[in-house]
Amino acid sequence: MNRVLVFDINETLLDLTPLDAIFASHLGEARIRREWFALLLSSAFALSLCGSYRSFTDLGASAARIVAKNYGGDAEGLWSAIRDALPALRAYPDVAPALERLSRAGFRMAALSQSPQSTLDAQLTGAGLAEFFTAICSVDTIRTYKPHPAAYRMVARRFECDLSNILMIAAHDWDVAGAMAAGCSAAFVARPGQSIDDVILKPTFVVGDIEELAEILLPSR
Amino acid sequence: MNRVLVFDINETLLDLTPLDAIFASHLGEARIRREWFALLLSSAFALSLCGSYRSFTDLGASAARIVAKNYGGDAEGLWSAIRDALPALRAYPDVAPALERLSRAGFRMAALSQSPQSTLDAQLTGAGLAEFFTAICSVDTIRTYKPHPAAYRMVARRFECDLSNILMIAAHDWDVAGAMAAGCSAAFVARPGQSIDDVILKPTFVVGDIEELAEILLPSR
Repeated sequence: MNRVLVFDINETLLDLTPLDAIFASHLGEARIRREWFALLLSSAFALSLCGSYRSFTDLGASAARIVAKNYGGDAEGLWSAIRDALPALRAYPDVAPALERLSRAGFRMAALSQSPQSTLDAQLTGAGLAEFFTAICSVDTIRTYKPHPAAYRMVARRFECDLSNILMIAAHDWDVAGAMAAGCSAAFVARPGQSIDDVILKPTFVVGDIEELAEILLPSR
Repeated sequence: MNRVLVFDINETLLDLTPLDAIFASHLGEARIRREWFALLLSSAFALSLCGSYRSFTDLGASAARIVAKNYGGDAEGLWSAIRDALPALRAYPDVAPALERLSRAGFRMAALSQSPQSTLDAQLTGAGLAEFFTAICSVDTIRTYKPHPAAYRMVARRFECDLSNILMIAAHDWDVAGAMAAGCSAAFVARPGQSIDDVILKPTFVVGDIEELAEILLPSR
């Protein structure tokens, strides 16, 4: 079995905390960044559940308008600052060394993100991670957001493999749950501020970062 | 045309702010109530998008465990306090008088909620609203959450009417969007703290409360 490792990007490999300062300066509180991103994700889920679609960029702008309205700030300035900062986000420090080890060990690796292709490509290039991935997949191709099973099936088709050969790696409970519901295995990465409810969700692996995942997946030397 | 008025319940007719005190006492900040409810809704959307189902009660308990973990509190005590408070929630003051007027004018009215039937029945009885509704519908019956079109279709079937005869009334953008995507018209109720992004969502009506909706729907005398 040659397992395909499929990584979520935002908040799993890339650290979004540099965006906190934008929310602090535009809306007065850094914590609103998490509220904005949660709203963005929730609106993406709701839209796919309706059977409709708008890009993650459009929904990011929309969520920025809503938090700007709720907290009293300039929506245009807020969104423009976020959009400019996205390609400059850095990977968590464990990511590049761990992907390097996994790559050298022969694992095929892919990115699977809610972001549209051009944003995703710019983000992975900006963070110096693009070279590690055989495939960089955006749900924009199928116009349906994760955790709909179509997203995971798209990656399986790309690698001509069974869903059971995919290990989805994400810092979000809903991505872990979606991948497992689709027939994949899944690792939850417990990034700061990310939790799962272990009463109702049992990921295949729970790790603190990607180095810890590499330790599990690589044969001990 | 005899339009069927379909009301969302939590945050639209019932005021959830009395729950704030529970979050303040268990986790130190009243505002976490909104984070909990947003997480609960988001997990419901994600689950339906996966094609899976758990009741809104189970997801409410799960979201309580997650915020208790993130903010350092007793999950069991938090959830037990929330669960006990749900049937005691009061309607916003505009609700009963407006439903009374609409009912006298001959509108058929229904409730459509994410809550399971027993919780929903207890909430509407507790708030003194049950008598106004011809049908009290829970998505638990179809095991698929709003805004999936199946939820709105369930109500149309119950009234043997076209979706175009339904006016969905909700304080949430996703419920308005879902109803309109399914073919209904929809009114957004701008309850405190609830906003829509009017760049991407154009509800049939936008009102401040249910009295304002009644003013629009009732012929002037």
